[in-house]
Amino acid sequence: MTISNESSFETLVRGRRSAAKFIPGIEIPDKEIEDMLSLTKFAPSAFNLQHAHYLVVKDEQVKLQVYEAASKQYKVKSASAVIVVLGNTEAYKDAARINEGLMHLGILNKQEYDMTVSSVEQFYEQRGDVFKREEAIRNASLSAMLFMLIAKDRGWDTCPMIGFDPEALRAALHIPDNYVPALIIALGKEDTASQRPRGYRKPTREFVSFNSF
Amino acid sequence: MTISNESSFETLVRGRRSAAKFIPGIEIPDKEIEDMLSLTKFAPSAFNLQHAHYLVVKDEQVKLQVYEAASKQYKVKSASAVIVVLGNTEAYKDAARINEGLMHLGILNKQEYDMTVSSVEQFYEQRGDVFKREEAIRNASLSAMLFMLIAKDRGWDTCPMIGFDPEALRAALHIPDNYVPALIIALGKEDTASQRPRGYRKPTREFVSFNSF
Repeated sequence: MTISNESSFETLVRGRRSAAKFIPGIEIPDKEIEDMLSLTKFAPSAFNLQHAHYLVVKDEQVKLQVYEAASKQYKVKSASAVIVVLGNTEAYKDAARINEGLMHLGILNKQEYDMTVSSVEQFYEQRGDVFKREEAIRNASLSAMLFMLIAKDRGWDTCPMIGFDPEALRAALHIPDNYVPALIIALGKEDTASQRPRGYRKPTREFVSFNSF
Repeated sequence: MTISNESSFETLVRGRRSAAKFIPGIEIPDKEIEDMLSLTKFAPSAFNLQHAHYLVVKDEQVKLQVYEAASKQYKVKSASAVIVVLGNTEAYKDAARINEGLMHLGILNKQEYDMTVSSVEQFYEQRGDVFKREEAIRNASLSAMLFMLIAKDRGWDTCPMIGFDPEALRAALHIPDNYVPALIIALGKEDTASQRPRGYRKPTREFVSFNSF
């Protein structure tokens, strides 16, 4: 017998795997997804702009449209929910609203508040559209990773997916132009009967450098 | 007294905050960073391509160059390590190498292996350069979020940063052209003496939709 020094978080990290196959017909209540997302909101985001938006698809008709947009991957059909994680390219326009609280609490005075808001706006406007889009993807992805761990902690399996037609998805789900679909997360209970061994991971020496590439 | 039903993971998620200020002069051994990254490798990535590369800066001279490239943000200077998280835009070229193990284990036969490799290559080549770059950022960000939680679980505070000049960073750290700096993570022990209250978070109804935006 070996005694493990592993933290329970470490067990969670090792236990989370991208689900290959879901058990069909399992329902997840809206409330349970909302609870997971109300913890996910503690993900960091640049300037606390909270770029991520979660579009949760459970309705069978809508799910079928996502399935069509995602090259008919069976996982989408059999998942309990399919969650489109969007990033807002115009999140910086919320800087005023998001920082108001800090001013009301007296943590920022009016002048500091104004400077914060205008410097955030400038930061994005100077860098332009490609940067805004990449920021949307970057911050939505940070949030998505946290969500997948939270789901696992509560007994749900997930699989992040990138194989979809973003424009077909946009049309089907009425996604506004300023939101980029960063990825899709299929969520459900994994059917582990025919589970493959975990995919190969590179040793650290292949993806870690010190001080210079 | 209230009894909490919160999982220890939930406590970790709520406890992780972007550090505003680090205690200067605290060292972190290379080995400790490597150990954290050897757990971070379990992050998911598209087609298991493991796009993320971690460039860890501890050397004071090199750190100074990152500090210059990052608008002289004091956090960079006072952090125990500054970690540049890169995404490989050509990660799909590793598909052959990464899937070899599955073939050797007999999980994929030669024909399935060949199909897997060529379909991954096609997937990226058809979608083009913008997609390759966004994939690099997306997958590096998924990995970065996991890394920040692992660091917190082991008593280290982090702060993700996007305010830097990517080309200055590329020059200073000799980053190859096929790697995109997705974000910087400053890591250290937070000086909580003058810590602000946590930033405002939007309620779920503002960032969650069901079935249609």
